[in-house]
Amino acid sequence: MPILSWNRYGKSRIRVVKVRRGPGLHNLVDLTIDVQLEGAFDAVYVDGDNTPCVATDTMKNTVYAMARTDPIDHVETFACRLADHFVGKPAVSRARISAVEHRWDRLSVAGGPHPHAFAQPGGEQWTAVITRDGKGTDIVSGLTNLVVLKTTDSAFSGFPRDEYTTLPVADDRIREALVETFAKHMSRSLQETLYAMGEAALAACADATEITLTMPNRHHLLVDLEPFGLDNPKEVFVATDQPFGLMEATIRRLPT
Amino acid sequence: MPILSWNRYGKSRIRVVKVRRGPGLHNLVDLTIDVQLEGAFDAVYVDGDNTPCVATDTMKNTVYAMARTDPIDHVETFACRLADHFVGKPAVSRARISAVEHRWDRLSVAGGPHPHAFAQPGGEQWTAVITRDGKGTDIVSGLTNLVVLKTTDSAFSGFPRDEYTTLPVADDRIREALVETFAKHMSRSLQETLYAMGEAALAACADATEITLTMPNRHHLLVDLEPFGLDNPKEVFVATDQPFGLMEATIRRLPT
Amino acid sequence: MPILSWNRYGKSRIRVVKVRRGPGLHNLVDLTIDVQLEGAFDAVYVDGDNTPCVATDTMKNTVYAMARTDPIDHVETFACRLADHFVGKPAVSRARISAVEHRWDRLSVAGGPHPHAFAQPGGEQWTAVITRDGKGTDIVSGLTNLVVLKTTDSAFSGFPRDEYTTLPVADDRIREALVETFAKHMSRSLQETLYAMGEAALAACADATEITLTMPNRHHLLVDLEPFGLDNPKEVFVATDQPFGLMEATIRRLPT
Amino acid sequence: MPILSWNRYGKSRIRVVKVRRGPGLHNLVDLTIDVQLEGAFDAVYVDGDNTPCVATDTMKNTVYAMARTDPIDHVETFACRLADHFVGKPAVSRARISAVEHRWDRLSVAGGPHPHAFAQPGGEQWTAVITRDGKGTDIVSGLTNLVVLKTTDSAFSGFPRDEYTTLPVADDRIREALVETFAKHMSRSLQETLYAMGEAALAACADATEITLTMPNRHHLLVDLEPFGLDNPKEVFVATDQPFGLMEATIRRLPT
Repeated sequence: MPILSWNRYGKSRIRVVKVRRGPGLHNLVDLTIDVQLEGAFDAVYVDGDNTPCVATDTMKNTVYAMARTDPIDHVETFACRLADHFVGKPAVSRARISAVEHRWDRLSVAGGPHPHAFAQPGGEQWTAVITRDGKGTDIVSGLTNLVVLKTTDSAFSGFPRDEYTTLPVADDRIREALVETFAKHMSRSLQETLYAMGEAALAACADATEITLTMPNRHHLLVDLEPFGLDNPKEVFVATDQPFGLMEATIRRLPT
Repeated sequence: MPILSWNRYGKSRIRVVKVRRGPGLHNLVDLTIDVQLEGAFDAVYVDGDNTPCVATDTMKNTVYAMARTDPIDHVETFACRLADHFVGKPAVSRARISAVEHRWDRLSVAGGPHPHAFAQPGGEQWTAVITRDGKGTDIVSGLTNLVVLKTTDSAFSGFPRDEYTTLPVADDRIREALVETFAKHMSRSLQETLYAMGEAALAACADATEITLTMPNRHHLLVDLEPFGLDNPKEVFVATDQPFGLMEATIRRLPT
Repeated sequence: MPILSWNRYGKSRIRVVKVRRGPGLHNLVDLTIDVQLEGAFDAVYVDGDNTPCVATDTMKNTVYAMARTDPIDHVETFACRLADHFVGKPAVSRARISAVEHRWDRLSVAGGPHPHAFAQPGGEQWTAVITRDGKGTDIVSGLTNLVVLKTTDSAFSGFPRDEYTTLPVADDRIREALVETFAKHMSRSLQETLYAMGEAALAACADATEITLTMPNRHHLLVDLEPFGLDNPKEVFVATDQPFGLMEATIRRLPT
Repeated sequence: MPILSWNRYGKSRIRVVKVRRGPGLHNLVDLTIDVQLEGAFDAVYVDGDNTPCVATDTMKNTVYAMARTDPIDHVETFACRLADHFVGKPAVSRARISAVEHRWDRLSVAGGPHPHAFAQPGGEQWTAVITRDGKGTDIVSGLTNLVVLKTTDSAFSGFPRDEYTTLPVADDRIREALVETFAKHMSRSLQETLYAMGEAALAACADATEITLTMPNRHHLLVDLEPFGLDNPKEVFVATDQPFGLMEATIRRLPT
């Protein structure tokens, strides 16, 4: 007879939009939330006994109800509140809440900000993963889908996509440190650029303990135009999707 | 014996990136090009006679070679040059070039523009379709994937995605007219907003003869929080992907 | 003052699954439906007068209600019934119903068919577009996403994706004719193969008046292994996604 | 000064198609391969010293060259050979090769198998992840994107997608055990079904030590047709994509 050596369950991709209707301006938060629980659920699997099991439909309802009562000023704070709620249920020993924030930019009309109209900028998204168990709470904030390009000063021109680990409040400072270092760094390899970016990000945010960068390198191949009697002084490129290089590393602050 | 009543062939998704290396700043154009030809190609299909057939590999090479010799200041002008080239080949009676422009924003470093580093903003893309045959040249410029949202002043809150028909030079003016009208219009239906947006776009660009708008309406459903003892004063919504409403119309300037 | 020269609206991507619970076996139909209407809707756009406007939410409800009362033995028959319903509404002059059928294969258990368990095979999908107006009803049946490959007997090894025009009942015969011709045809070009496939499909189905084939040709490039001291006798290939060749043609039965 | 606490790099999505041209039949293997290396690469990141660094372009070339010399009868064996090769390089301490196999079914023509024409069935894909380091080799075989459905006998009708851990040779036996158990099991929860499926898979394959199942549960909601004067005896459903339930567990054979 085999044993159940690990299990986890939950509700994924709960789409919640919250409008805060202030007297002058409206504000908008647009999130996709995943809830995942671990705990004493073996009987659900082995004996078909659903008693300890929080229904995944209840998880969804909880997210919507808490979205009403929480201001959602910070996604990490909202996710922590959700984690606290679920970890307080019988049988649950660990709750993992992950959130992706979809950005909306306020529209400008006649040079001024419009009170209630927005456009979706695309591009990078903020992510947060909160894990809560008996040992405490772990917060990982991230930035995904940031696509950058340099036309010189790099041994490997690169399209990194970054994800990092930090506290919520320093988001803009860290993005700026990453992007500025990417722009200015005279690179001998994408790996060297990655390390310099991580170092700069840690310097910019004293509260972060470590940062993990995942940088896919989408290749641009110089087209051979000689058969057509033309030179190509690093001017015309084929953009390719696959294969791509992939560099990953964690840079950690030394304990002082 | 059946007849071949229509045919067209070509090369799709040619990915070309051009870097213009000026003395101070580098500039970047990033395009996906499709080439499609019609003409006297019946023998290729019916008799297996490839004599009249421009190879699709040659189409790809032509795009890269012309990307070297053309400055690509305007995508429409570059696409017209390609169409002229192909329509001049024996057997070809009509050439259709379609282009999608992927945007790159110059990075700011220490408050100033960086000479050669860029980030991809995501969001809306510019499109152009040029058709050239014996009767002349048809230019359709477009804007796709513009996602907008209003939190009030609409009977149907909407997420339109717009595409319009105009001359190339007025791109920014038209986007502004569309977005401002969306923001300011007190809507009794998405259809009414669509018409007002088209009217404003034609007013903003005297050279455009007509505009076609395709507006998917992605629904946001108010969550019923009563079972949890909470009200929901238009504050918490489920964002849904499907089904969605779809409104399409062409608005045309009356001949004067 | 501009004029509204064309308009159309509707509900897209209505996802409906119907289970027919027979005494022995259950049967399953899984569809995605789009409804689009044209007619006397100008006042909706120009004057904000919604009186003639069938709500898109009503369209969705209609699809679900008719899915209850119709056996959906043939997707085309069900779509015709929907088109008839909408074209009977005031203001509506043309209704267009398009449907995509997602296949489910009955599972075999212990060598026999299982009464109520299914697996989704992926691969090709059946499509149908029904257009109904004052002049009559137009039926276009199609097959999309059929991906085939030949390792020899072709000047251009190809990955066609086919879509054709015919009456519903002959689906399997036509798929067989297309696929057999693809397999057996000694090709001098993908265009020649396309024509032979269309000819065979018309021969296989006496009721079809014409067939349109759209065949993307996804290239497989022979890898140059000489730098590594290896030959490559048409054995190892890079599969590429873009660019790809694209061949399109309509083959029509001559009136007798 | 921060430290580099972990790093890994490689080439992702290498697309390789191999044709084995036997005297009678041709055979086809279609793979997407990722190569990832760990080892003494700190100097590459910190000092910009690329000496120890196997270029990612070399990784790609190696995959193509080995695809020529290896028969690729089993994907796992081919991946092990690649892992052995890379782990033998200076500085490399661990190599991770992951492979996805894209299926092709031989076409039948006139009732018999065609020697060199194939169609792509879609649906489930086989995966393999081989990790090789000083401690030995770890083999994880998987099956992804298997979509199944039951119209009765389940408290939660479900669409599981399965992935499991086993030795390569038993693929078909394990798929059969999973699918048969899914079809026959009288479920009180998807969790109970998951456990029964894992138990059956371990029973079917004596060499597997454990199996991990990841089962998304895509909900089908019964449509309320009462407002339209219709009943709905579990017949008409809305298929939804999100949110979805997600059940995950590892079932392990007890040591004997």
